[in-house]
Amino acid sequence: MDFAPSERTRELTERLKRFMREEVVPAEPVYASQLAGGADHRQWRQPTVMEQLKAKARDAGLWNLFLPDLDGGPGLSNLEYAPLAEIMGHSFIAPEVFNCNAPDTGNMEVLHRYGSAAQREQWLEPLLRGEIRSGFAMTEPDVASSDATNMRATATLEGDEVVLNGRKWWTTGLGHPHCRFVIFMGLSDAGADPHRRHSMVICPLDAPGVHIERMLPVFHDHDEPSGHGELHFANVRLPATHVILGPGRGFEIAQGRLGPGRVHHCMRALGAAERALSLLCQRAASRVAFGQPLIRLGGNADIIANLRMAIEQARLLTLKTAWTLDTHGSKAALSLISQIKVVVPAVAQQAADAAIQIHGGAGFSDDFPLARLYAHARVLRLADGPDEVHRAVVAKLEAKAQLATESHA
Amino acid sequence: MDFAPSERTRELTERLKRFMREEVVPAEPVYASQLAGGADHRQWRQPTVMEQLKAKARDAGLWNLFLPDLDGGPGLSNLEYAPLAEIMGHSFIAPEVFNCNAPDTGNMEVLHRYGSAAQREQWLEPLLRGEIRSGFAMTEPDVASSDATNMRATATLEGDEVVLNGRKWWTTGLGHPHCRFVIFMGLSDAGADPHRRHSMVICPLDAPGVHIERMLPVFHDHDEPSGHGELHFANVRLPATHVILGPGRGFEIAQGRLGPGRVHHCMRALGAAERALSLLCQRAASRVAFGQPLIRLGGNADIIANLRMAIEQARLLTLKTAWTLDTHGSKAALSLISQIKVVVPAVAQQAADAAIQIHGGAGFSDDFPLARLYAHARVLRLADGPDEVHRAVVAKLEAKAQLATESHA
Amino acid sequence: MDFAPSERTRELTERLKRFMREEVVPAEPVYASQLAGGADHRQWRQPTVMEQLKAKARDAGLWNLFLPDLDGGPGLSNLEYAPLAEIMGHSFIAPEVFNCNAPDTGNMEVLHRYGSAAQREQWLEPLLRGEIRSGFAMTEPDVASSDATNMRATATLEGDEVVLNGRKWWTTGLGHPHCRFVIFMGLSDAGADPHRRHSMVICPLDAPGVHIERMLPVFHDHDEPSGHGELHFANVRLPATHVILGPGRGFEIAQGRLGPGRVHHCMRALGAAERALSLLCQRAASRVAFGQPLIRLGGNADIIANLRMAIEQARLLTLKTAWTLDTHGSKAALSLISQIKVVVPAVAQQAADAAIQIHGGAGFSDDFPLARLYAHARVLRLADGPDEVHRAVVAKLEAKAQLATESHA
Amino acid sequence: MDFAPSERTRELTERLKRFMREEVVPAEPVYASQLAGGADHRQWRQPTVMEQLKAKARDAGLWNLFLPDLDGGPGLSNLEYAPLAEIMGHSFIAPEVFNCNAPDTGNMEVLHRYGSAAQREQWLEPLLRGEIRSGFAMTEPDVASSDATNMRATATLEGDEVVLNGRKWWTTGLGHPHCRFVIFMGLSDAGADPHRRHSMVICPLDAPGVHIERMLPVFHDHDEPSGHGELHFANVRLPATHVILGPGRGFEIAQGRLGPGRVHHCMRALGAAERALSLLCQRAASRVAFGQPLIRLGGNADIIANLRMAIEQARLLTLKTAWTLDTHGSKAALSLISQIKVVVPAVAQQAADAAIQIHGGAGFSDDFPLARLYAHARVLRLADGPDEVHRAVVAKLEAKAQLATESHA
Repeated sequence: MDFAPSERTRELTERLKRFMREEVVPAEPVYASQLAGGADHRQWRQPTVMEQLKAKARDAGLWNLFLPDLDGGPGLSNLEYAPLAEIMGHSFIAPEVFNCNAPDTGNMEVLHRYGSAAQREQWLEPLLRGEIRSGFAMTEPDVASSDATNMRATATLEGDEVVLNGRKWWTTGLGHPHCRFVIFMGLSDAGADPHRRHSMVICPLDAPGVHIERMLPVFHDHDEPSGHGELHFANVRLPATHVILGPGRGFEIAQGRLGPGRVHHCMRALGAAERALSLLCQRAASRVAFGQPLIRLGGNADIIANLRMAIEQARLLTLKTAWTLDTHGSKAALSLISQIKVVVPAVAQQAADAAIQIHGGAGFSDDFPLARLYAHARVLRLADGPDEVHRAVVAKLEAKAQLATESHA
Repeated sequence: MDFAPSERTRELTERLKRFMREEVVPAEPVYASQLAGGADHRQWRQPTVMEQLKAKARDAGLWNLFLPDLDGGPGLSNLEYAPLAEIMGHSFIAPEVFNCNAPDTGNMEVLHRYGSAAQREQWLEPLLRGEIRSGFAMTEPDVASSDATNMRATATLEGDEVVLNGRKWWTTGLGHPHCRFVIFMGLSDAGADPHRRHSMVICPLDAPGVHIERMLPVFHDHDEPSGHGELHFANVRLPATHVILGPGRGFEIAQGRLGPGRVHHCMRALGAAERALSLLCQRAASRVAFGQPLIRLGGNADIIANLRMAIEQARLLTLKTAWTLDTHGSKAALSLISQIKVVVPAVAQQAADAAIQIHGGAGFSDDFPLARLYAHARVLRLADGPDEVHRAVVAKLEAKAQLATESHA
Repeated sequence: MDFAPSERTRELTERLKRFMREEVVPAEPVYASQLAGGADHRQWRQPTVMEQLKAKARDAGLWNLFLPDLDGGPGLSNLEYAPLAEIMGHSFIAPEVFNCNAPDTGNMEVLHRYGSAAQREQWLEPLLRGEIRSGFAMTEPDVASSDATNMRATATLEGDEVVLNGRKWWTTGLGHPHCRFVIFMGLSDAGADPHRRHSMVICPLDAPGVHIERMLPVFHDHDEPSGHGELHFANVRLPATHVILGPGRGFEIAQGRLGPGRVHHCMRALGAAERALSLLCQRAASRVAFGQPLIRLGGNADIIANLRMAIEQARLLTLKTAWTLDTHGSKAALSLISQIKVVVPAVAQQAADAAIQIHGGAGFSDDFPLARLYAHARVLRLADGPDEVHRAVVAKLEAKAQLATESHA
Repeated sequence: MDFAPSERTRELTERLKRFMREEVVPAEPVYASQLAGGADHRQWRQPTVMEQLKAKARDAGLWNLFLPDLDGGPGLSNLEYAPLAEIMGHSFIAPEVFNCNAPDTGNMEVLHRYGSAAQREQWLEPLLRGEIRSGFAMTEPDVASSDATNMRATATLEGDEVVLNGRKWWTTGLGHPHCRFVIFMGLSDAGADPHRRHSMVICPLDAPGVHIERMLPVFHDHDEPSGHGELHFANVRLPATHVILGPGRGFEIAQGRLGPGRVHHCMRALGAAERALSLLCQRAASRVAFGQPLIRLGGNADIIANLRMAIEQARLLTLKTAWTLDTHGSKAALSLISQIKVVVPAVAQQAADAAIQIHGGAGFSDDFPLARLYAHARVLRLADGPDEVHRAVVAKLEAKAQLATESHA
């Protein structure tokens, strides 16, 4: 056992931190000032500073770090990439700067691992170059999507075509002016074995029948210019070559996609939690009440200690998950992946809430990033499966393991 | 001891609930549709439906119910009014409908109890008639306002004038098109006894030197058309007759103002918590996952039970606080007032968070009022003093009481 | 609504507190010194000081206060008795002093309400006089007794006899030298309607076939000289006149017995919580570390405030439950009774745990009553139904109520 | 970074688990039956089965595994030993079997690192051979010992003698029939620099003036035959050669002693937590209520999942602490050591409490080890410094680190 990061991670960490400090953080207010403002995504524009930052990041070799076995790329393991994802999590704009933002990372992985040569050329290459963006259309407004078998949207094979129908929402990134396609998941054979019923299909946004109904706010925030959208697919006809891996293989792809994606999400959320804790400490040290800096008052020191302990533990759990994925595969990591999906967003939410409290009214205003940090963490308790489903997975696997072995001691 | 409400409360409860059901709730979407939208408060308009509702409420005798000893009004005690405030808390638009919305209620109480005849005629009467609205300018951006002695804004008496200087923020209601004045609290004699240093001054918004700097969002929500504003007072000169009760009597007024106001806030927050629980139960009963309605899955029933128990207890505590205020005065209620300020917002936040979770992504979107319920509860953990200050008050009074008596048993 | 206690309660509270202060508390060390010590209940003796205290309490008119409609007694309502039960809860030995200790109170209520004249004369009268004690044999070691339908012990009617068979445990009071009988609950007709299957039977401890197997420790404490016992009933034959109310009416009796009993338990537990908080405050004020009394260090004041708020709320909930029982009957109080069974023991456990922490090692030693206060509270989270079952009851009734009404607001 | 245990740990883990399964666990009831029973430690005897187990463990090479750099021993690092300590934590009797029980391990480390040749020969050698046992006398009954500067006991140098005076308590192991000496910590120079005031002295129990006042119960349990004792040192005169390392060097020794000891404590506590979780799962799977095994009812699965996540995280934190101690030394591990002292006992307490709840009344009886697991975890929240002190350390170091660096991002 060894808790020291690899040499490669150490070196990249240094460079990434410097780039964050020198390029990304100073650009945050510029980026904000270049946003159009408003809820209508058709008026959203990509801030020019983002494209400048992307170019610099690419030149600096800090590009597509997330992709484990990229040809010619760094080819970092999940464990090696995880600390880098955490650093990116310190700034909302950072992941896109390094072409490491969800859901594009997950989509790139899917296309990289399961896409045909043609699919890779048409969709993966421009994604890898950061020229276009994409969405993932799985959750549906009309059913409890925590149970994937509830899915009602269809991807029906008709001859050499696949026909998409249904409603999807919470497709993150849909509002982005560069968004060109979504990966759509739908039922293609309701009579098949439960894990062979669904297909994933590449659906260009300009395909006839694709309707963006609206952008959905998260605690009144539209996450411009990325956004979360609701889509209506009305008899969308596409060549069957748009199906990824083949009909009925949607779950198989989803399984492979989720592990690393959840590790990324969690590490970024830990970066956000660290930022919240950092802001909390600075405010607590600089504001004075009753003759003392806040940090010395009442239970405030306990709050800091509790957050440090919670973050530290959550990070170790996430790193172990990444290591398990790398060394024993996604099946062995099943329980751990669900564990971090419960643990980390809760820690991040707790950190943001505590930091808001110390900041007083400023905390939930726009003067600090805390309201948004809070919202991101809160969303993550539902995105990619709600806490409840993941707890159930952990409990089920635990009970199975416990009852298989003899009693301890 | 008797837990049955008074006959008068019972009768008003019935009528209020009917009015809510028949008039207020159906008007909610109309109200929303009549809002201008956007962050610029100068474009905000009072929805016409609100004025119609106000007229109806007045005709129905459901008007100014909050005012304990109103001439010709119902003259309800705090204990009698409390359940009515809870009912109003079910809808964001309700308090204004009944002319029972903060901070106007507190300002009306102040003017009713401490205002001069001229002040009452000029400012209280139109408030009581619902013609104008007002704000309260106490919290400051540059200091930890949890400690009132940090206050830097000044209200300096110069001859027969009072001169206001300083910055204030989180003045709720400031953005409202009907808002005409704020009650400003400032330092008038830094050398006086700590509780005689501050004055409260009626400051018209159109006085020269009053600058509305901006409206502050709460989790990206501007609470249009009411809003929370930041104000700059630059050498604002007013006749000394604008001082309430007299120079140096600001704290004395604040003491009298806070008790009932906190009971109102808390009862409304309990109404909000009940609404969240109600929405939670309905969603949990109607959505199905893994072959069961959500309400039967995992720990969801526990969540419902825990909320019911928490709300029930918080309500009893608040009612006891109202009763103590009524029968033993605000000094006797000191600990209880701080207790409810800690307990109730936390319960309301917990209820909103749990309801969001059951609703999935819909929970924090605009499709349900949960994101806003959440934000209101969250704000209340800071407004009128943060949890931390109130806990400290409770602990201090408890320790004093414990150490004054002999050991139990 | 009125939070002031009745005149009668006020007067009894005064006298009871004085008696506690002057008689009971000083007798605690005497009582402890008169215990035999050890796990073998056959050597346990009733401390003589207890009989002296009982005589004094009886003379002072502080006797059998729990019985609502006692001939010639005070006939207090549940709401009037509740604050007295809380006071008794400050001392472990107090309830017996006033003949108000469980499970005898519950048994006396059962016999008073449902017993035949002969049963009342033979068993109730000496209980009311405090001459004998009794137990209640319901929980079984071999099944999850949280589900009453799991019960396996039998009470079979054979002609004019009833025959008891089975194992019972956690029969509190069984070890007491004055214990003469238990009320046994068993299955008498497995084929009947679920709520008509069980009977309650008065079983003298000297009946042939009754075997006391052992006394059960609670966290290594045997609660001498009362104890919690395991019983084996091996073909115990009794006249059918020992059946209470009639065969198959066990559940009917249990329903009536539980409400007041749970209120008593909870109020005593709140007395225990108050004692823990009182000890906590005294220790925190008197011990010094890092140059300050503990009460001023870190989050200790928050701990005190949180306990005060939790106890206050739990008490109000319990009093409301008592009031609901009195004015609307046990069916209307169903949810509230389950609510207090979840809320109050948790608060008492939390108070004892916090007090232990402040006391350091002394906290869990015998130098303070905290370890025992803790254990009592912990037991109460299981006795009379575990938290889990009561939460399920609350949730079920809540969902039913919510789904029956229209949506709020 | 690598989460796989070292080859040596893996091999020892296998052997230790087998020894636990084949030797230790089957001996538990034998051990219990060989205890004398009772609170009087003078009647306590070492169960013969323990000496037999010790001999076998020694033969099996599973002896003194804790000692990092033992001549001729395994010389495991803290990180390598930690998983072995966890396994030992599954059984109360296991640590002594392997000569790895507190406080002897800490005392052996002190003598090994700081003892003179004569001290090592006289006291360390028989400890290493498991022939004698020892105690550690630091905590005092009359002051808040969480603040070490409160210490009142004295170790005064007079010529070539050292004179001990004062009261100590919670000296674990003092009741053991093999206990021969304690390491006493006392004030030797009140005027010196704060960290040079105290000395550690080897005090044989048969030295004139050493009085064992009593054994202290933990939740009514005396932990026979080890026990926790209160000692009175009345003018105990010893040769100055009994001082370890030299006068005034007590704190220096304490610093070095605490890190590994806390890791050991925590890993054993995690073993205890695992045992509690294992018992919980088995009971929950085997008991049936309302037609389902308990594991399927209400929130029980969540309880299992929450414990698994909490234990997993706490273990990783402890392992990282061990690694940091090994690779960067005790100063670098300061915050982590305090973190695990807060986190791990809380997790173990939570696990034991949850397991008790699932077991019903059996949970806190002697039929299961849960009451004792609970008590051990509870003690650990105070032993070696209360949670509060450790949280304060974590917060202080965190604030220092945060304020030293620039703001993140």
